[in-house]
Amino acid sequence: MKPIVVKLGGSVVTAKEKTFTPNIPSINRIVKEIAEARLDSLILIHGGGSFGHPVAREYQIVEGYKTPSQKIGFSKTRQAMMALNKLVIDTFIRQNIPVVAIQPSACITTKGGRIQHFDITAIQHFLHLGFIPVLYADAVLDLDLGFSILSGDQIAAELAMIFNAEKMVIAVDVDGLFTDDPKSNPNAKMINEISLEELNRLLDSIDVAKTVDVTKGMRGKVTELIPTVERGIQIDIVNASIADRLYKALKGEKVTGTKITRG
Amino acid sequence: MKPIVVKLGGSVVTAKEKTFTPNIPSINRIVKEIAEARLDSLILIHGGGSFGHPVAREYQIVEGYKTPSQKIGFSKTRQAMMALNKLVIDTFIRQNIPVVAIQPSACITTKGGRIQHFDITAIQHFLHLGFIPVLYADAVLDLDLGFSILSGDQIAAELAMIFNAEKMVIAVDVDGLFTDDPKSNPNAKMINEISLEELNRLLDSIDVAKTVDVTKGMRGKVTELIPTVERGIQIDIVNASIADRLYKALKGEKVTGTKITRG
Repeated sequence: MKPIVVKLGGSVVTAKEKTFTPNIPSINRIVKEIAEARLDSLILIHGGGSFGHPVAREYQIVEGYKTPSQKIGFSKTRQAMMALNKLVIDTFIRQNIPVVAIQPSACITTKGGRIQHFDITAIQHFLHLGFIPVLYADAVLDLDLGFSILSGDQIAAELAMIFNAEKMVIAVDVDGLFTDDPKSNPNAKMINEISLEELNRLLDSIDVAKTVDVTKGMRGKVTELIPTVERGIQIDIVNASIADRLYKALKGEKVTGTKITRG
Repeated sequence: MKPIVVKLGGSVVTAKEKTFTPNIPSINRIVKEIAEARLDSLILIHGGGSFGHPVAREYQIVEGYKTPSQKIGFSKTRQAMMALNKLVIDTFIRQNIPVVAIQPSACITTKGGRIQHFDITAIQHFLHLGFIPVLYADAVLDLDLGFSILSGDQIAAELAMIFNAEKMVIAVDVDGLFTDDPKSNPNAKMINEISLEELNRLLDSIDVAKTVDVTKGMRGKVTELIPTVERGIQIDIVNASIADRLYKALKGEKVTGTKITRG
């Protein structure tokens, strides 16, 4: 049974400009859409948004271990992510959906910011028992840097490849990919479907998210997803801040968004 | 650098008879004692107390997966443990001690209730960087039972053996081991020091904790510790609900409690 891998952007689970502020109505609606989709096999990853990123930035965690005073910042970053993850998990439990958090920093170590070791034993068994494993962007150990920040996008892409996902759904707060930044260029057009070859050509012009995000914006996101598409796994980028788009993407229904295929 | 492994009983971090009630003054004092001990290398494990146990009992998690309706109980048990762990971690962070939670169910699977797979990569690196890894009793996957409950005692014993601990400190809410149950037998005497051979002889008469604890009482606890002592790792059982006893045990000072040695 191939799982669907869903990445919920930090921008849809938190109020991204307000530190430590969850977007509760959005979390509630998204969890409801996932519940209603009644998928057989699903892995969920959420970003850090206004929980993880501000603390990580304050202590420069993404740049690695340079001074002992950063260590408490690492602890605080992780703890902020735990707080956000708790909110997400609690919401699923209220909907009677058996989910289980999987702490990335307990089973993943990176090297130069890239996943080097990933013990998937637990995730594998949880999927088998019908649980939804829920992972998240996390402060993790890094063999070169001491520690670093691992983005939810990298975790999602890695899991999609490991489990040969049926598809990957990237839930963000914009409608999809554009030919240019729609905020500055009125001629920017949304892309409904794009092949890997076209995407690579376009990559230099894609709009880059402007808000606080230590793991880079939309360009970094797309770059992270390319290896997944190369393996033949389709990616749907949808706006999860608009009702039913995530649901439709999960069910494979026609939906506004950008579909990336190997072509 | 050999770490000291400290197990904090559920009875010292929670009000054990009151569901979901942490013992905040006790957690604060214990964290302060650990901070003041300024150990070079420490691994901490805490029990579930009134957080994990009542939920686990309600859904019979320790007996394994028998019916789908237990799955939400597994999610709830884990979530209760996360809530308790968050309180413990937050207290350390307030004291400026760099700690990092390690979710047991993300890196351990059991078989018939015994640890079968334990990915210690992260713990190893965190210790190396000078963090205190904090683990806890957890609902975990079990290869025979589907899932089960893994006691903090078993995790502590396993880690003490894996890392060849300098010693192991078991912090409980009683003064130590007694020759019989002191509540029912006025002639019961506290044991200050006991060898493995004497302990094995005594084991049938040791008082068994009477409060809610799905992972068995003092007898189960001691049985769990024996393999550690067999490896030559000394164990100090101390009453952490009395000020300074944990601190003294950590510092190797003379303290009221029971010392178990290989003899």
